[in-house]
Amino acid sequence: MERHFHHQLEDLKKALLQMAALAEAQIAQSVKALEERNTALCDEVIQNDKPVNDLEMEIDQLCIQLLATQQPIARDLRFIAAAMKINADLERMGDIAVNIARRAKRLVTLPVLKPLIDIPRMATLTQAMVKQSLDAFVRADEHLAREVCIQDDQIDNLQDQIFRELLTYMMEQPRSVPQALQLIFISRHIERIADHATNIAESVVYFLEGKIIKHRADDAVEVGE
Amino acid sequence: MERHFHHQLEDLKKALLQMAALAEAQIAQSVKALEERNTALCDEVIQNDKPVNDLEMEIDQLCIQLLATQQPIARDLRFIAAAMKINADLERMGDIAVNIARRAKRLVTLPVLKPLIDIPRMATLTQAMVKQSLDAFVRADEHLAREVCIQDDQIDNLQDQIFRELLTYMMEQPRSVPQALQLIFISRHIERIADHATNIAESVVYFLEGKIIKHRADDAVEVGE
Repeated sequence: MERHFHHQLEDLKKALLQMAALAEAQIAQSVKALEERNTALCDEVIQNDKPVNDLEMEIDQLCIQLLATQQPIARDLRFIAAAMKINADLERMGDIAVNIARRAKRLVTLPVLKPLIDIPRMATLTQAMVKQSLDAFVRADEHLAREVCIQDDQIDNLQDQIFRELLTYMMEQPRSVPQALQLIFISRHIERIADHATNIAESVVYFLEGKIIKHRADDAVEVGE
Repeated sequence: MERHFHHQLEDLKKALLQMAALAEAQIAQSVKALEERNTALCDEVIQNDKPVNDLEMEIDQLCIQLLATQQPIARDLRFIAAAMKINADLERMGDIAVNIARRAKRLVTLPVLKPLIDIPRMATLTQAMVKQSLDAFVRADEHLAREVCIQDDQIDNLQDQIFRELLTYMMEQPRSVPQALQLIFISRHIERIADHATNIAESVVYFLEGKIIKHRADDAVEVGE
C-alpha cells in the first residue's frame, strides 16, 4: 500500500510537470505569435487550450481520488493540496496565453504602432519566473521559490513603464488608441502570468514548510493609478 | 465521530458563508465608492482586504485539516473540494473589489467623463450572480447554479458595449483617455467577478452531481477584439 501510494504521488508529480510544459509552451507561442504578427500561430494557441483544460481536470480528479483513497497526512497531504493549487494556476496561465493570442491576432489587422521592446522583455522575465517556480517544485527548493516571489516587483515596474508610454501615445495620437489598448491589455495579461508563477512559488513554500506566505504582496498598487 | 464530523462540516459551511458575506460587502462598497466618488469609502475597501485574506487562509487550513483527520469520501469529499475552490474564488473577488476601489479613488482626481449608467448596471447584475451562486450552494440547488452560468453571457455583452463606447470617447477626445481607461479596467474587474461567480456555480454542480461543467465557456471571445 505504502509503495503503491508513493507511485501514485510520483504519477501526480509527472502529470503536473506535463501540465507545466503545456502551459509554458502556450505562453511562449503566444508571445512569439505577437512578435511575429503570425495569425496562424495565434490560432494554434487558441486551439491548443483544450488539452490544457483536459489535463487540468484529470489532475484535479487524481488529487481528489488520492485524498479519498490514501488518507494522506502531513507532508503528503500538503503535497496534494499544493498540487491542486499549482494545477489551477497552470490552467489559468494557459487561459491567459489564449487571451494574448486573441489580442495578438487583433493587432495583426491594425497598423504597427511601434517596435515591441518592453513587452517581449517583460515576457522573457515572466517566462523565467514560471520556469523557476516549477524548478523549485521539482527540486523541492524553498530558496528558489522565495526568489520567484521577489521578482514580481520587477514585472510590476516594467508594466507601469509600458502603461505610461502607451498612455502618452493614446493622448497624442488618437488613431493609435486601438493598438495601444491591445498592448496595454497584453502587458496586463503577462503581469497576471507572473502573479500565477508567484502563487506557484508560494504553494511550493507551503508544501515544503507548512507555512503560508501569500497575501504579503497584496498591497502592491495596480498599474495605471 | 460521525456526529463530530457532521458538526465540522457545518462549521466549514458557516465559515464559507461568512467569507461570502465579506466578499459581497467589499464588492458592494467598491461600486458605491465609484458611483459616489467617495475617497474615504475607497480607502475603507482597501483596508478591509485583510480580514478577507485572513479568513481565506483559515478556511483553507480547516479544509486540509478535515481531509487529514476525517478521511471523507464521496459527497463529503466533494463538498470539501468544492469548499476549497469556492473559498479561493471569494478571496479573488475581494481582491478585485480592492482593485475597483483603487481605480475609483484615481477617478476622483480626474474630471467626470460621463454619468455612469452601464457600469452600475453591470455591477448590479454581477452582484445578483454572486448572490445566486451562493444561494445555490446553501440550498444545494443545482438548477439555480446552472442558471448563474448562463447569465455570464449578458455580462460579456454589457462589457463589450461599455468598451466600444469608451473607445469612441478616447479617439474623439484625447483628454478623456485617462478616465476612459480606468472605466474600461473597472468594467473588466466586474466581468471577472462574474467569472468567479460562474466558477462558484460550477463548483456547486460538481459538489452535488460529481459532474465537472467548467471549461465550456472558454470559447467566449474577450472584449475589445
